[in-house]
Amino acid sequence: MLRAMSEDLADRLIGASELHGDFVLSSGKRSSVYFDKFRFLTDPPLLKEVAHAVAGHLPEGITHLAAPEGAATLLVAAIALETHLPIAVVRKEPKAYGTMSQVEGQAPAGAQVALIEDVSTTGHQVLKAARVLEAEGCTIGIVVLAIDRGGAEHLRDEGYWVKSVVEIRPAED
Amino acid sequence: MLRAMSEDLADRLIGASELHGDFVLSSGKRSSVYFDKFRFLTDPPLLKEVAHAVAGHLPEGITHLAAPEGAATLLVAAIALETHLPIAVVRKEPKAYGTMSQVEGQAPAGAQVALIEDVSTTGHQVLKAARVLEAEGCTIGIVVLAIDRGGAEHLRDEGYWVKSVVEIRPAED
Repeated sequence: MLRAMSEDLADRLIGASELHGDFVLSSGKRSSVYFDKFRFLTDPPLLKEVAHAVAGHLPEGITHLAAPEGAATLLVAAIALETHLPIAVVRKEPKAYGTMSQVEGQAPAGAQVALIEDVSTTGHQVLKAARVLEAEGCTIGIVVLAIDRGGAEHLRDEGYWVKSVVEIRPAED
Repeated sequence: MLRAMSEDLADRLIGASELHGDFVLSSGKRSSVYFDKFRFLTDPPLLKEVAHAVAGHLPEGITHLAAPEGAATLLVAAIALETHLPIAVVRKEPKAYGTMSQVEGQAPAGAQVALIEDVSTTGHQVLKAARVLEAEGCTIGIVVLAIDRGGAEHLRDEGYWVKSVVEIRPAED
């Protein structure tokens, strides 16, 4: 049943987000298909449904949510409104003024963090954010990916507990 | 009554977000006070309350929400969940691959957009986002600032209809 729900959600995420045309990917390769994660993150019913599914993966004892800066902040806001857990946003680079911090929001030392990412293909950005949070004294209690496009395996290799709402494998490379 | 509510909310926003210490501001000036907007945007009860207040300012006929990329995406997600309006996120620069677009998410030509910003001091970033949306064929129906620190006046000078939830004037420059 859970599997069926997840497959239905996967179909709708792909339906909302898969664009067809002629695209240059971040790798520099051309593709006739592009997965535009903003399409589902900016659709309130889908955003709410994905946030609810992510929240369902959070174990006991999580005190804070975190996400890398960017599109994932839409998702983490929706999860926070459902779970009432405070949020940390991890910048790619430390802020150049003010707090000078690479972590914005709520990430006290000792926090048990659920690190959230919308889509992860390599796990690279999530791993980088995890290291930054750990350097602040936080513990990564779990990583939850809305969509695992391959990143989960790499993050597990690094020792993290990783769950995902749906798993999508690229149709072509 | 509305004014009293707003003053109470202003007090709590300042209480959550005003940091005291020795800070270098974005202008390069030093200050003993720094307003860290992430503090209220990452606190779920405050985020929800501010989002509700922003939603209360939206006129009839608005079809879409928009926000500049960055911290405001936390706020616009919360407003979207309350209003069920789809979201556009406006990048500072066009994306270098994939859609190549400066506007992510939902911003079809003809959309009547409520452009949302967390804090505006000069109005500059909001104005830039408004111009980008207009170039996509959207109409800016209203600009709503969670916190007006001076930006509203500049945006009104540019011809926009601007409302704000609370108005905070910097204690020192």
